[in-house]
Amino acid sequence: MLSEYKKYAIIVAGGKGERMQTAQPKQFINIGGKPLLMHTLMAFSRFDINLEIILVLPDGQIKNWGQICKKYHFNVRHQVIAGGPERFHSVKSGIKLVETESLVAVHDGVRPLLSLDLIKRVFEAAAKYGAAVPCIEVRESLREINGVSSIPVDRHVLRLIQTPQCFRSDMLIDAYNISYQPKFTDDATVVENAGHKIHLVEGDPLNIKVTLPMDLVIAESLISKG
Amino acid sequence: MLSEYKKYAIIVAGGKGERMQTAQPKQFINIGGKPLLMHTLMAFSRFDINLEIILVLPDGQIKNWGQICKKYHFNVRHQVIAGGPERFHSVKSGIKLVETESLVAVHDGVRPLLSLDLIKRVFEAAAKYGAAVPCIEVRESLREINGVSSIPVDRHVLRLIQTPQCFRSDMLIDAYNISYQPKFTDDATVVENAGHKIHLVEGDPLNIKVTLPMDLVIAESLISKG
Repeated sequence: MLSEYKKYAIIVAGGKGERMQTAQPKQFINIGGKPLLMHTLMAFSRFDINLEIILVLPDGQIKNWGQICKKYHFNVRHQVIAGGPERFHSVKSGIKLVETESLVAVHDGVRPLLSLDLIKRVFEAAAKYGAAVPCIEVRESLREINGVSSIPVDRHVLRLIQTPQCFRSDMLIDAYNISYQPKFTDDATVVENAGHKIHLVEGDPLNIKVTLPMDLVIAESLISKG
Repeated sequence: MLSEYKKYAIIVAGGKGERMQTAQPKQFINIGGKPLLMHTLMAFSRFDINLEIILVLPDGQIKNWGQICKKYHFNVRHQVIAGGPERFHSVKSGIKLVETESLVAVHDGVRPLLSLDLIKRVFEAAAKYGAAVPCIEVRESLREINGVSSIPVDRHVLRLIQTPQCFRSDMLIDAYNISYQPKFTDDATVVENAGHKIHLVEGDPLNIKVTLPMDLVIAESLISKG
């Protein structure tokens, strides 16, 4: 039962703004009246006021974030901890603040458009199966490249993976008790590496990752429509 | 040399509006002040005023399109021809109007945001290599599903395929002289099936395919910013 568990969200925001071509890291850019990252934290807070939010930021941005929160009178309760060089290290940092016997959703800070339904789906599936990962269908044709040549790939057997990825804390803590490997592209691959099974749940095409300048325009328009 | 060739664009707009949950087929929905499909045709016309545009529509929509063009005083020169049950049949219809010794770009009508640079890239590559297909990197993790289980897939060797896909007319006409097979998901797979090599060129993340209601909001915002 979902209600028996203490719940956490580890929100990873390691961006330094390089792909965004802006002075500000993308997680602090204003969309729909407030910094992107605030939308993300508010979504989790709306889902469950008692959920513990752990925000992982680059060490050099923690002070800046504090000032931004003050400026916006941002009152969503959360802890902040410094991350590391790769996303893997940042999640590992966040896990230090997690108590056992809980459920932990790990989420990309730059996905501000996640819905309450999506958060609910991943927590419920994690309570039942241990490890729940949202995914969506691929809507375009795909090819596999090999040097200068390429071959078509059947998109119907593939899924695009999103976050939040949600896990029983024992599973997640145990899986992250390892050194970084380049094959760890998300939390699912880390947990899987420790021998656990991943349960896929339905993601949401609206739950976009804001990484390119065009994504800011998109996120802004979707937030104002939502 | 690109300038030696007569140039065509076959624009395929077969949508019946089912996924869009609207009364109107998606290609006729108004974005940024005019029907989506007009943006698409205008992009090709801006690239080269002498380019021949062949618009393939479902038989039942041709009259409607004519009325819409009149209403909007739409003056981009183009021919209209009726399509068939699958995209394959619609392209095959359009090809009937193509002269040999030319270059033919085949494009999804519901990608209204294609840039002049992208059109130029595919025509130039087709003049040089015979068959040019735009692609972009996959920005999210991928998994391959197999019943209830799934395994991670390396996204770095995969590319999302877009249109316009551009071909020397002899290659395209020859390749489409065949019956429909379900593996024909785009023009590249048809041309490849006839033994030709596909040259990949750089696509554009902005060149989105408008298929879901959220895509209309996105396209509208990108067009107004553009």
